[in-house]
Amino acid sequence: MEFLKSRRSIRKFKDQPPSLEKVLKALDIARFAPSAKNAQPWRFIVITDPEVKSKLSRIHPAAKPLERAPLAVVVACNIDESPVSYMLDCSAATVYFLLAAHALGLGTVWIQTMRNIENIREILGMPASAVPIAILAVGYPDESPEPPPRKPLESIVYLNKYGEPAIKLHDAR
Amino acid sequence: MEFLKSRRSIRKFKDQPPSLEKVLKALDIARFAPSAKNAQPWRFIVITDPEVKSKLSRIHPAAKPLERAPLAVVVACNIDESPVSYMLDCSAATVYFLLAAHALGLGTVWIQTMRNIENIREILGMPASAVPIAILAVGYPDESPEPPPRKPLESIVYLNKYGEPAIKLHDAR
Repeated sequence: MEFLKSRRSIRKFKDQPPSLEKVLKALDIARFAPSAKNAQPWRFIVITDPEVKSKLSRIHPAAKPLERAPLAVVVACNIDESPVSYMLDCSAATVYFLLAAHALGLGTVWIQTMRNIENIREILGMPASAVPIAILAVGYPDESPEPPPRKPLESIVYLNKYGEPAIKLHDAR
Repeated sequence: MEFLKSRRSIRKFKDQPPSLEKVLKALDIARFAPSAKNAQPWRFIVITDPEVKSKLSRIHPAAKPLERAPLAVVVACNIDESPVSYMLDCSAATVYFLLAAHALGLGTVWIQTMRNIENIREILGMPASAVPIAILAVGYPDESPEPPPRKPLESIVYLNKYGEPAIKLHDAR
């Protein structure tokens, strides 16, 4: 439980790049994420080429952490393998990777892709059947940010009906 | 790493229901999932009412495990809070819940919703601004299934370009 709570988004990295071996170890664990009908529609593109990484860092302002991250991992979905739930499946694999990286001492931040799909496809030579759902900056953390604020549990948990506050929630805790 | 690898989908449950307190503990951890711009568009509906649970178990054949699960949790997204990436965000929170439940000794299976959104909305009184992305059957496991087969790492990891096998992958491992 504490492990899950302790992962933060990291945007500043030490210069030393993680070994490809270490990144592959985390990707190996990402394979164990659940997916609809076990379709596993995910693909991972490890970006070590500084030029490719630099192009990705310019797709939108919030992608800037890629500029100084030693490497990146792009998560793409093969939509033919899971036409209805590829986003859910690939997000699950992304979270498994983020957590495995955390377990290995690596920091990561999830950079959004959904408004820049065509641009990313072009940079990485992706076919129309592949949708990039995440770019992850990866490296050894060079900051220890505080956790961002969270909505209180009471405001997001309902009982048996949408919008029905879970009764006696306070007592139950 | 072993913890992440060890979670299985569980479809058979012991009769004894988990306490609401235990389920809330896992939901408390789900709040720590990452989301775009920290929007946290997720809502969780805990289903303890057998009649509601029974209705959900009949939305499609693969929803049957709900019938005998002691309880269920529906994950819904408020699309107004994250119009572009609500599916990715809510999937991340779902995975955090699945893993937290696993850490607490609870078994879960993710039941698909994407082809039955209207039906689920009706059962739970959900507005059009809310999209159910998962129904999770929850209980103490009464089976220990083998892990389903996974695609080999070599077939899903590329280097710098989509479709480009990560060179010397075998050596790197």
